[in-house]
Amino acid sequence: MIAYGLGIASRDSALAVIETYFPRPAVASEGAAVRKLADLCGLPGGGSGYRWLDDGGIEAFAALAAAIGEPQQQELAARLRGCETLLLCVVDSSLAPASVPEAFLKLHLLSHRIARPHEQNLDKLFAVLHNLAWTSRGPVSLPDLPALQLEARLQGETLTVHSVDKFPKMTDYVVPAGVRLADSARIRLGAHIGAGTTVMHEGFVNFNAGTAGAAMIEGRISAGVVVGENSDLGGSSSTMGTLSGGGVEIVSVGRNCLIGANAGIGMPLADGCIVEAGLYLTAGAVVRQLGASGELLRTCKARQLAGLSGQLFRRNSLSGAIECLPRGRQVALNEELHVHN
Amino acid sequence: MIAYGLGIASRDSALAVIETYFPRPAVASEGAAVRKLADLCGLPGGGSGYRWLDDGGIEAFAALAAAIGEPQQQELAARLRGCETLLLCVVDSSLAPASVPEAFLKLHLLSHRIARPHEQNLDKLFAVLHNLAWTSRGPVSLPDLPALQLEARLQGETLTVHSVDKFPKMTDYVVPAGVRLADSARIRLGAHIGAGTTVMHEGFVNFNAGTAGAAMIEGRISAGVVVGENSDLGGSSSTMGTLSGGGVEIVSVGRNCLIGANAGIGMPLADGCIVEAGLYLTAGAVVRQLGASGELLRTCKARQLAGLSGQLFRRNSLSGAIECLPRGRQVALNEELHVHN
Amino acid sequence: MIAYGLGIASRDSALAVIETYFPRPAVASEGAAVRKLADLCGLPGGGSGYRWLDDGGIEAFAALAAAIGEPQQQELAARLRGCETLLLCVVDSSLAPASVPEAFLKLHLLSHRIARPHEQNLDKLFAVLHNLAWTSRGPVSLPDLPALQLEARLQGETLTVHSVDKFPKMTDYVVPAGVRLADSARIRLGAHIGAGTTVMHEGFVNFNAGTAGAAMIEGRISAGVVVGENSDLGGSSSTMGTLSGGGVEIVSVGRNCLIGANAGIGMPLADGCIVEAGLYLTAGAVVRQLGASGELLRTCKARQLAGLSGQLFRRNSLSGAIECLPRGRQVALNEELHVHN
Repeated sequence: MIAYGLGIASRDSALAVIETYFPRPAVASEGAAVRKLADLCGLPGGGSGYRWLDDGGIEAFAALAAAIGEPQQQELAARLRGCETLLLCVVDSSLAPASVPEAFLKLHLLSHRIARPHEQNLDKLFAVLHNLAWTSRGPVSLPDLPALQLEARLQGETLTVHSVDKFPKMTDYVVPAGVRLADSARIRLGAHIGAGTTVMHEGFVNFNAGTAGAAMIEGRISAGVVVGENSDLGGSSSTMGTLSGGGVEIVSVGRNCLIGANAGIGMPLADGCIVEAGLYLTAGAVVRQLGASGELLRTCKARQLAGLSGQLFRRNSLSGAIECLPRGRQVALNEELHVHN
Repeated sequence: MIAYGLGIASRDSALAVIETYFPRPAVASEGAAVRKLADLCGLPGGGSGYRWLDDGGIEAFAALAAAIGEPQQQELAARLRGCETLLLCVVDSSLAPASVPEAFLKLHLLSHRIARPHEQNLDKLFAVLHNLAWTSRGPVSLPDLPALQLEARLQGETLTVHSVDKFPKMTDYVVPAGVRLADSARIRLGAHIGAGTTVMHEGFVNFNAGTAGAAMIEGRISAGVVVGENSDLGGSSSTMGTLSGGGVEIVSVGRNCLIGANAGIGMPLADGCIVEAGLYLTAGAVVRQLGASGELLRTCKARQLAGLSGQLFRRNSLSGAIECLPRGRQVALNEELHVHN
Repeated sequence: MIAYGLGIASRDSALAVIETYFPRPAVASEGAAVRKLADLCGLPGGGSGYRWLDDGGIEAFAALAAAIGEPQQQELAARLRGCETLLLCVVDSSLAPASVPEAFLKLHLLSHRIARPHEQNLDKLFAVLHNLAWTSRGPVSLPDLPALQLEARLQGETLTVHSVDKFPKMTDYVVPAGVRLADSARIRLGAHIGAGTTVMHEGFVNFNAGTAGAAMIEGRISAGVVVGENSDLGGSSSTMGTLSGGGVEIVSVGRNCLIGANAGIGMPLADGCIVEAGLYLTAGAVVRQLGASGELLRTCKARQLAGLSGQLFRRNSLSGAIECLPRGRQVALNEELHVHN
């Protein structure tokens, strides 16, 4: 997939690009558009890259947008004329991002729901992105920060540093339709938030992760984890990631699942499963698999049950044993909380 | 109960009211005041509603305030003269809110500690409130947001979106006396925070929920849940709500309780109870109830123990069984952390 | 240890000092410097205190800095000339802070990594610090807040209250080198964040606590708790504090440890230990200590195992018993996530 966008870049005091905002990222759907964009971007062999646009460049882009039938892009070009740090970026989803604009464009595509998690090569993302202070005055490189903080104080002004990280928060770039995000500091740019999803204050969504559709998220969706439609992650529930200290299997959550408050999973959960509040189901936990009448079918590692839908995982409150059994109660997202998103 | 307030409204680009700030909500305690307010508000039959106030309206309100002996309201009216989006709102606690100002007034009453949780009809609250972007420039309707974000960027300014939700954070409307709220993003307008309460960063308080008096809150108080005086909710502890995916019994916490870090309750907890760190006590968990000497009294569902005060709930670390026994150690809130609030 | 700093103070409407920002706190390493600073600060007997600096005072400080060979302090003095609320503060690490500037200086020393946790007397800190509203316009005393909020509204401006607390967030004062702090609202001034540490959104670090070096922190480091190098605290993991409702033993985490998501410790953890996700290991939990072949060595309280390195703590998923056994798998922090901090 080839995607592109007009971007407004931020630069540090050494004029290095540290961040880029893409108001309207888009996919180039057919060959002619792809070639024209590559030309304009100075990429004769195709691939990914970016180019600064001066007035001539903006005109050329506007003409290109007209030629490929994208009036919204034309309109945006007109709006951005005069912007001093304007660039055009093109990314090939199969290539690792090699610059800050490319990295930001790929993260935008996820948050605009143009790309879904796992569809893009994000190798070396951490090496490309700069660790920045995200402040009330926008992104600031860390060497530049102390002088800026002192300056603000002396002027009697306030400069707040919300975060020191490679990723900003998504809502400062886009708010996709039909979602509620109670504490946006916990939603990284690059999160894919499906329409109808509510993320409560305790919820968290990392980049290249998120929900496929409607969901109630009060737990943590680690990088790479996708939660299926109509699922419910209870308060502080955990989906084990693979980035740091975790396991090696990619965790996912099926449709119509319920992970209870303070629970967790270290293995994929199939459709219609429930994990009892407080139970951390690691992939290697030894589990007693029971039948519908409570009879013991077998004892196995939790990961061997990963494909089974409609199961309830609990810790027997008398024996302390982790059990898996076919479940009864339906999980129903509270209509009222989602219909009005 | 009839309550009222002068409110400053925010409107979107279509002039719909999206939010209202009430500097000084109050209760109309006697019949004459109630009738005068209803008249001024254009509510001949009583009930709830609001009315825009022009200069004549503000004068009429000031006169009403003088007549009912409310000099603070008179003073406020003088202060608000000239405000272009000024309104008077009256709410009947027994009627469901039917407009944004009514909804906001009811939430203010809770946060001003004028009303306590469960005292007001909040039916259909989610249908009445707008899902908004809460930004560094105040509330913005979602359709209006993209243009505003782009505009800010082009001006070299920063527009941060803190939250996308129907509820703003309480501290932007009122900070009641005698509380500490370490991360105010986690305290919704409509939360009732008792004097002497500290809510640490991990703590969370939803609307129509909160604490009756002094408390140390590092866990999550779900909508509808009230925590009694001198109780302590440990880090990331959970009080199961009824809004989404939870149970059906309203959970509450008595006085002098301690819910350990990462623990949780799915049933009401009577006075003086302790829930061991890490234990999620669901209403349906089968529990061994022990006597003071450790003898087994009976095995029953946790919910059957809901009324018993002075109990310790733990998971036996050798047998894995959940147990309930009369407790020894007192729970004492650290004086130093609360006396100086 | 004697430390000092030029500070810019904030005062409330009654002119009481409520906060102080120290751009460049430092240690006075030798006797002559200590004496000169004490003199300039009006402390003939030594100890801790502060003094307002007028133009003459700033000159005297600049001369002192030159005399003790501190060109950076001279440079800062030049920069701060003209500042109306400038002070010089000196603190003796062994004395309890008795004023707001002294308290803030001690917290700065921790966050600048000049002092480590437990090296300074912080007695009565809560009594000295003011509970303040931390706003988009800086610190505001609580009595001053309502008028300011109303004023802002009438001017069509936004005043956001991020927090109501005695402690501000660290990043508004300093961002030490080599760290990532995804949600800075959760890092208090006074936190000691070691170089190479990443604190994710779910992580939290209190004052007088933190990490000794590189670490991945997604859990809560309570006041007084120090985490050793190359350790990993999983999402929402808990280190029990002693401030409120917790135990009495100071908890610490050794090097190369892994505390799983939603797990917790109520006792110190020696080097190389792992606590399974979801397990809360309280100091008093009765644990089965196993040998390398799984044989039972003894049953004892968890606190008796506090000194043992290289242990895995888990809850047996069949028997429900908490077990401690020598561990196999190495814990390795993901290089990519830390090298680029």
